[in-house]
Amino acid sequence: MNIILLSGGSGKRLWPLSNDIRSKQFIKIFKSEDGGYESMVQRVYRQIRNVDASADITVATSKEQISSLKNQLGEDVSISVEPCRRDTFPAIALATAYLHDVKGMDENEVVVVCPVDPYVQKEYFEALHSLSELAAKDTANLVLMGMEPTYPSEKYGYIIPECAEKVSKVATFKEKPDTETAKDYIAQGALWNGGIFAYKLKYVLKRAHELIDFTDYHDLYSKYDTLTKISFDYAVVEKEDDIAVMRFAGDWKDLGTWNTLTEAMEEAVIGNARMNETCENTHVINELDVPVLCMGLKDIVVSASADGILVSDKNESSYIKPFVDAIDAPIMYAEKSWGSYRVMDVEEESTTIKVTLHAGNAMNYHSHERRDEVWTIISGCGRTVVDGMEQSVKAGDVITMQAGCKHMIMADTELKLIEVQLGKEISVDDKKKHERE
Amino acid sequence: MNIILLSGGSGKRLWPLSNDIRSKQFIKIFKSEDGGYESMVQRVYRQIRNVDASADITVATSKEQISSLKNQLGEDVSISVEPCRRDTFPAIALATAYLHDVKGMDENEVVVVCPVDPYVQKEYFEALHSLSELAAKDTANLVLMGMEPTYPSEKYGYIIPECAEKVSKVATFKEKPDTETAKDYIAQGALWNGGIFAYKLKYVLKRAHELIDFTDYHDLYSKYDTLTKISFDYAVVEKEDDIAVMRFAGDWKDLGTWNTLTEAMEEAVIGNARMNETCENTHVINELDVPVLCMGLKDIVVSASADGILVSDKNESSYIKPFVDAIDAPIMYAEKSWGSYRVMDVEEESTTIKVTLHAGNAMNYHSHERRDEVWTIISGCGRTVVDGMEQSVKAGDVITMQAGCKHMIMADTELKLIEVQLGKEISVDDKKKHERE
Repeated sequence: MNIILLSGGSGKRLWPLSNDIRSKQFIKIFKSEDGGYESMVQRVYRQIRNVDASADITVATSKEQISSLKNQLGEDVSISVEPCRRDTFPAIALATAYLHDVKGMDENEVVVVCPVDPYVQKEYFEALHSLSELAAKDTANLVLMGMEPTYPSEKYGYIIPECAEKVSKVATFKEKPDTETAKDYIAQGALWNGGIFAYKLKYVLKRAHELIDFTDYHDLYSKYDTLTKISFDYAVVEKEDDIAVMRFAGDWKDLGTWNTLTEAMEEAVIGNARMNETCENTHVINELDVPVLCMGLKDIVVSASADGILVSDKNESSYIKPFVDAIDAPIMYAEKSWGSYRVMDVEEESTTIKVTLHAGNAMNYHSHERRDEVWTIISGCGRTVVDGMEQSVKAGDVITMQAGCKHMIMADTELKLIEVQLGKEISVDDKKKHERE
Repeated sequence: MNIILLSGGSGKRLWPLSNDIRSKQFIKIFKSEDGGYESMVQRVYRQIRNVDASADITVATSKEQISSLKNQLGEDVSISVEPCRRDTFPAIALATAYLHDVKGMDENEVVVVCPVDPYVQKEYFEALHSLSELAAKDTANLVLMGMEPTYPSEKYGYIIPECAEKVSKVATFKEKPDTETAKDYIAQGALWNGGIFAYKLKYVLKRAHELIDFTDYHDLYSKYDTLTKISFDYAVVEKEDDIAVMRFAGDWKDLGTWNTLTEAMEEAVIGNARMNETCENTHVINELDVPVLCMGLKDIVVSASADGILVSDKNESSYIKPFVDAIDAPIMYAEKSWGSYRVMDVEEESTTIKVTLHAGNAMNYHSHERRDEVWTIISGCGRTVVDGMEQSVKAGDVITMQAGCKHMIMADTELKLIEVQLGKEISVDDKKKHERE
């Protein structure tokens, strides 16, 4: 089975665990098989492999997520990188061209496209496999998965099938309706459109060439920023007559708000937190080292990270976005492909951060124009390069770098250091990359 | 007016703002006259001075509080230091001897003793002044302030006066009653005992010499740890026949729980926090740099400090103590006479802290046996002494100290530094003080 996982953009609805650079799919809140916690993307990746160990998985995403994906899924994860955000039709066209031109898949191979963030069980991935087989048998040009509705939701588009069979041709699509109209649709046997579909590569490549002037993957990639933003539903699905839908009645949850996310949590508490016996329907996710104590709370979610602290009634949490947009605070924690960093202290003319490098990883060779830096290695060992000179370092070593000085560090074991940045105008933009001499 | 302020022990009922080394009287939650915030002890100190600019104020407290008191009230604050905790009778006897033997007050001078932590207004301090005058006129051996009860509380002792006059002899005292008994007392005209009283120094000195074998202040101080723990009420008040009480009907609040403390807050929010419009009767005190966002909360207190985060229904917050006792976490922030420190990161073999020294202040000259240290100065300037060698330092300078090396730093201006401690057994107890050579 070939799968394209669409890994969507950053979101603030799950602040303070999601932010401008950390999307919800990277938050570790699900129990993993080894007793720890895994993120949505780790969970989905593992679930696919459990159903089909040889599945070929490609993640379609923007370059901002590459670090997080490699951090969570490993360096070998296959990624179709969107140079900028251009909605789902360009993203799927690019990923399809990537499978064909870069990974060398035959144009008659089938791929299943699905979002990375629904909360689902094994049966869902078995259904994806069936979907792939239906597309391979040319059941239709496009084969969609239709979710059996559990209530007349206003937040999904609806698919009206021609008949009530497990697999049916699609009669028509309906935009997101109001509740009354949704009830009518459901009475007609309508299904939710979950944005999951299977096709042969040649089908989407043909559509893409009809709509975009490009030769191959590399050409499409180079002109990606010139493409019109348009959804796959609008550009392809609504214009296609030959579409089939397969019903799916299993678990399928959209974990877009704290309310829905906490419903999927297996334990009321993640991290260092304690609730007294008078708390009801309350969830705590604490990424900080210090303890959280909750007393007498009802229907509340508490979430704490290096970026901030949310305390919200669960229903109210759906309205979080404008409040988070109004918070003008720097991002205090980030996962990178090489490890992670945490901002520990910000003063007028200094910033102190903790840097963790995974074994075998290195920073880029770089310099800053307007700040000096001091590294104190607190654990592990590795090598620094400062103005071309390489040196072995271990816990306790101190490296001072004046502004302008080129520097990097490579971790031989996992390596942690405290970096003190000193200067009047400290900014993440003050960074110049260099080639090693 | 001479005043002894009893500054009580550490408490955990206001965790995470109070802890083993930070008592509630040092939490800055009241609007000060300069637009910032002041603590209970700062507020009371300022209020006394506003009523009587020449008041002679002595704080009776344990040595653990000296740093915080000097930090908040200035180096010149007069402190009667209890070498260890021995309840209120020994503490008041020691402070009274301190006034007589160290400050040289005449034994006929009057002193008013009152706790440091009630939330009161100007009228209260004017009443203290009247109390002092009553004692000076030998109205009785002891003159108490009796609070007009506002409800049949179970948490106070009751004073039954002989008559309903403003000033009256005391008929009898009653221990903390149940609600029904309290109603009876109030019907008889009883007053709450707030632990506020005035006397001539010679009176308490005489009682002290009757109960304790000591010559003068220094002798009492040296044998303080051998004294029996006993309250002033039990040792003196209940055995004295000649006691007067003065009624007080003004504001007088005991701010011992989050519920009562938030009632005294003038603003719903202190620190970096935001509430949406659906929050009701909710208070937030955030000492952290990162934002707190509250949505849809009702009757909730949220309090965040470097030590932890509390989210509690206000009524439930009265039951906090056993939960805080169960939290086994190190203290992450402390105010000292020379400034403050904050623990920023704890790893297995390193601890990183931020140290702030007030201008003109210095650390003790000290060494550690089992850890190296690295200082990176992030602001200000001063001088370090390392193994006897003095050196000027400024922002950007790095000082490395091996285990065993003697060191200190003096701040010429306010000075901040990041200290990285490195070693396998880092402990606050690993500290040896030295004399400067």
